[in-house]
Amino acid sequence: MSGTQRDFNEVYGLKFEDLYVGRTASASRTISEADILMFAGVSGDTNPVHLDGEFAASTMFGGRIAHGMLSAGLISAVFGTRLPGPGCIYLSQSLKFKAPVKIGDTVVARVTVTELKNEKRRAIFSTVCSVGDQIVLDGEAEILVPRRK
Amino acid sequence: MSGTQRDFNEVYGLKFEDLYVGRTASASRTISEADILMFAGVSGDTNPVHLDGEFAASTMFGGRIAHGMLSAGLISAVFGTRLPGPGCIYLSQSLKFKAPVKIGDTVVARVTVTELKNEKRRAIFSTVCSVGDQIVLDGEAEILVPRRK
Repeated sequence: MSGTQRDFNEVYGLKFEDLYVGRTASASRTISEADILMFAGVSGDTNPVHLDGEFAASTMFGGRIAHGMLSAGLISAVFGTRLPGPGCIYLSQSLKFKAPVKIGDTVVARVTVTELKNEKRRAIFSTVCSVGDQIVLDGEAEILVPRRK
Repeated sequence: MSGTQRDFNEVYGLKFEDLYVGRTASASRTISEADILMFAGVSGDTNPVHLDGEFAASTMFGGRIAHGMLSAGLISAVFGTRLPGPGCIYLSQSLKFKAPVKIGDTVVARVTVTELKNEKRRAIFSTVCSVGDQIVLDGEAEILVPRRK
């Protein structure tokens, strides 16, 4: 193999055989005003509850909140980079938005294997985002995971 | 009222009474490389299938694909800005990722009222993202919608 030829085995993530019920991983992020502005730009979701502090102060939230899909993006990041990581295919995700996320909140997104469907190499995960002790988002995901060659 | 005092009625979106089964709205966006880079930055999802063209070419997708949650963000944008618009509260969303979105694809996100739960002022929507005739994402959402005062 030439020194410049790429071996994608080093890029690929975990295999189906590496998973077990209870295996878990997380990612976390302190949500900044810039994150909200960037998410508004990339999604087109310019709802003033995210962008307009005066309007947001008039709502039940009492101030600007992050887009729910920004927390969902953190779940996607755990799947795409940590558990299982590159090579997996995102099949489905359910999301229940339980509480708002405000600027300065640190969101922890955790995914945990709850079921393995061996014949279809699919893994079911619980997916929870929390700020401190408060669950802000929960749901379930189904991921197709490659087997070892 | 002073000339500078804000009247948030002009900011608020549709009310529960404005909704009916079948009412629909959409938003669309041509997905650029910059969108994918921005979404990777804001979510932390740096899976190489999104960022590394050589790795992505070695996968079943044959090239870089957009994050599924980027399409989900377009659904959020329709709810947050068009139907119902500001003032609504996102309660839940299910997402089934059906096909990949590539750079240059124009994603149309459409939401359609399928059921109204009057006593709880909740609206159920079907949510579909498509590229041409291909559905890339489908699911269902539940939204809490304010009533008229």
